[in-house]
Amino acid sequence: MKRYHIGKVYRRDNPKMKRGRYREFYQCDFDIAGDFDPMVPDAECIKIVVEILDKLDLGQYKIYTPWHVVRNEMINEKGLTPEVADKIWSYVQMHGNVDSIDKLRTDVQLMAVKSANEENLAGEALDGLKVLFRYLTLYGIMDKIIFDLKLARGLDYYTGVIFEAVLTKYQYDPQSGDDQIAVGSVAGGGRYDELVCKIDPRKRTVPCIGGSVGVERIFSIKEHQMIESQIQIKTIETEVYVASAQKNLIEERMKLCNYLWANSFKAEMALKRNPRLLDQLQYCEKNQIELCVIIGSAELEAGIIKIRDVETREEFEIPRAQLVEQLRVHLTRVRQRIQES
Amino acid sequence: MKRYHIGKVYRRDNPKMKRGRYREFYQCDFDIAGDFDPMVPDAECIKIVVEILDKLDLGQYKIYTPWHVVRNEMINEKGLTPEVADKIWSYVQMHGNVDSIDKLRTDVQLMAVKSANEENLAGEALDGLKVLFRYLTLYGIMDKIIFDLKLARGLDYYTGVIFEAVLTKYQYDPQSGDDQIAVGSVAGGGRYDELVCKIDPRKRTVPCIGGSVGVERIFSIKEHQMIESQIQIKTIETEVYVASAQKNLIEERMKLCNYLWANSFKAEMALKRNPRLLDQLQYCEKNQIELCVIIGSAELEAGIIKIRDVETREEFEIPRAQLVEQLRVHLTRVRQRIQES
Repeated sequence: MKRYHIGKVYRRDNPKMKRGRYREFYQCDFDIAGDFDPMVPDAECIKIVVEILDKLDLGQYKIYTPWHVVRNEMINEKGLTPEVADKIWSYVQMHGNVDSIDKLRTDVQLMAVKSANEENLAGEALDGLKVLFRYLTLYGIMDKIIFDLKLARGLDYYTGVIFEAVLTKYQYDPQSGDDQIAVGSVAGGGRYDELVCKIDPRKRTVPCIGGSVGVERIFSIKEHQMIESQIQIKTIETEVYVASAQKNLIEERMKLCNYLWANSFKAEMALKRNPRLLDQLQYCEKNQIELCVIIGSAELEAGIIKIRDVETREEFEIPRAQLVEQLRVHLTRVRQRIQES
Repeated sequence: MKRYHIGKVYRRDNPKMKRGRYREFYQCDFDIAGDFDPMVPDAECIKIVVEILDKLDLGQYKIYTPWHVVRNEMINEKGLTPEVADKIWSYVQMHGNVDSIDKLRTDVQLMAVKSANEENLAGEALDGLKVLFRYLTLYGIMDKIIFDLKLARGLDYYTGVIFEAVLTKYQYDPQSGDDQIAVGSVAGGGRYDELVCKIDPRKRTVPCIGGSVGVERIFSIKEHQMIESQIQIKTIETEVYVASAQKNLIEERMKLCNYLWANSFKAEMALKRNPRLLDQLQYCEKNQIELCVIIGSAELEAGIIKIRDVETREEFEIPRAQLVEQLRVHLTRVRQRIQES
């Protein structure tokens, strides 16, 4: 089963308000649950994180697989000595790719480590890493992956691969004092094969892997980017504004809005009986509405209507019967211009 | 300001679990706040309710404007006698349209009612109704509107127009015992001009009107409709499934998925190393995935690939270099067929 969810989640931390960490916050989660072959869903989850971060255009980032958890697991659960585990680490750190695993495999000392029942422990651990590296290479994202000794995830339910995506540009720097954008870690997750069994009254085992994207952190970064680049973002959906040039045309504006709504345009008008034309045009410019349709009593009588390109302030008079068709043409043109600029 | 929101809201009621009423529930809200001309945003909110209910295809419905609140307001705030208020009601009940207001205006007895400072009270109240009726007529929705003496909204913060949308087919019937779909009221709202002032520490007055749509009630109706009509709904987004006909092709499937993702297809594959072809095809059919791409070692060597139309089970062999282009063609064709059926 695959699922995703964007909604409120909760954490038990003492919140550090200044860094934008609250106990209640929004998060985007995705998970793959079920009995699948080793590292296949794991690689897919890391691929999903890469796709999300690339699309969001947040600048350079790296995905860390915190090595110390793997190391502890190898020592505590697989029975390796700390020396052997660190030796594996030194190889990975040096090479960080699939080849390094094969070199490790030729290490006589390492391969000699066996458990009480003669299993080849180091070989087993390396096989898992090798498969994951191989899949991440096939998915074209091995260049984003870093194994790191220092990082740790805050939760203790992880049982296998864990990962954390950190933005290179927005790393937390306690020296700078600028806490607002110090939001290095924006996504993370891992394998939690035992959690369902602990909660399920019927004690079923459901292997799971999943990740989360910190929606609020990413919002604060995007806001920061927009302020820096001075790009104004259009925050309403309206594409056609219905304005009037004279008084007592509210009913005509309503009829026209209704007609545009019926033809699937996102249309809007002033909710005053007699708004000033200047106010209406300023509203369009401030809100980056693409087109403005202007009605006046002379035009109404003549069966014509004026379309205004809000950005260029050009105006075109067209027969009212062609309104829908002409609005579609002009909307396409305006959008192309905006995209090209 | 206009805003909308879909999220969790809370109510203080004792929940009647059987009727799907919980204290925490999802709701879609929309509101227009700010100082606008009388009845303009009010008419727009009612229009929004009509558009939403029409798009959702929930069958016949009526929008009730609970008259008793208007009546009480006219008696308590405008100073009319109950007899005069009921007289207005009898006209509205009889005609329920703009004309009835004009007939009321000619009623000598009614128009004689004046406040201490000689304001024409009944005339004022009727003017409001007349304007609302006029706007709702312009928006083409007057046929949905019913004024009703009996209905009331549960909240006491409303100060003007209030409305409630009730599905004709799914009215609550205590006799039937079938509580699951007895969800008559699916949307409602009204004007609340004093709420912001009560909450705002600076006591600013912000006139507001808004409405809510009962998302959970509507979901239960849509589910009921689907069970009745036996229509299977596609619940995943996947449009292309990558399958393999033989063993040991997981890496080829991964590469192909990655290629399709890069070309903006919603692609998916089995997360097992060696899934059976039959299982893969059954997954496609069960989940209504439009197309399945099947790879085998012979085809891989020959540089060809098989596209399967999941519904018709037709298969086409194409050169691998044409995959993206051919998938687009076949997807368009399949979707047209589904839409036409």
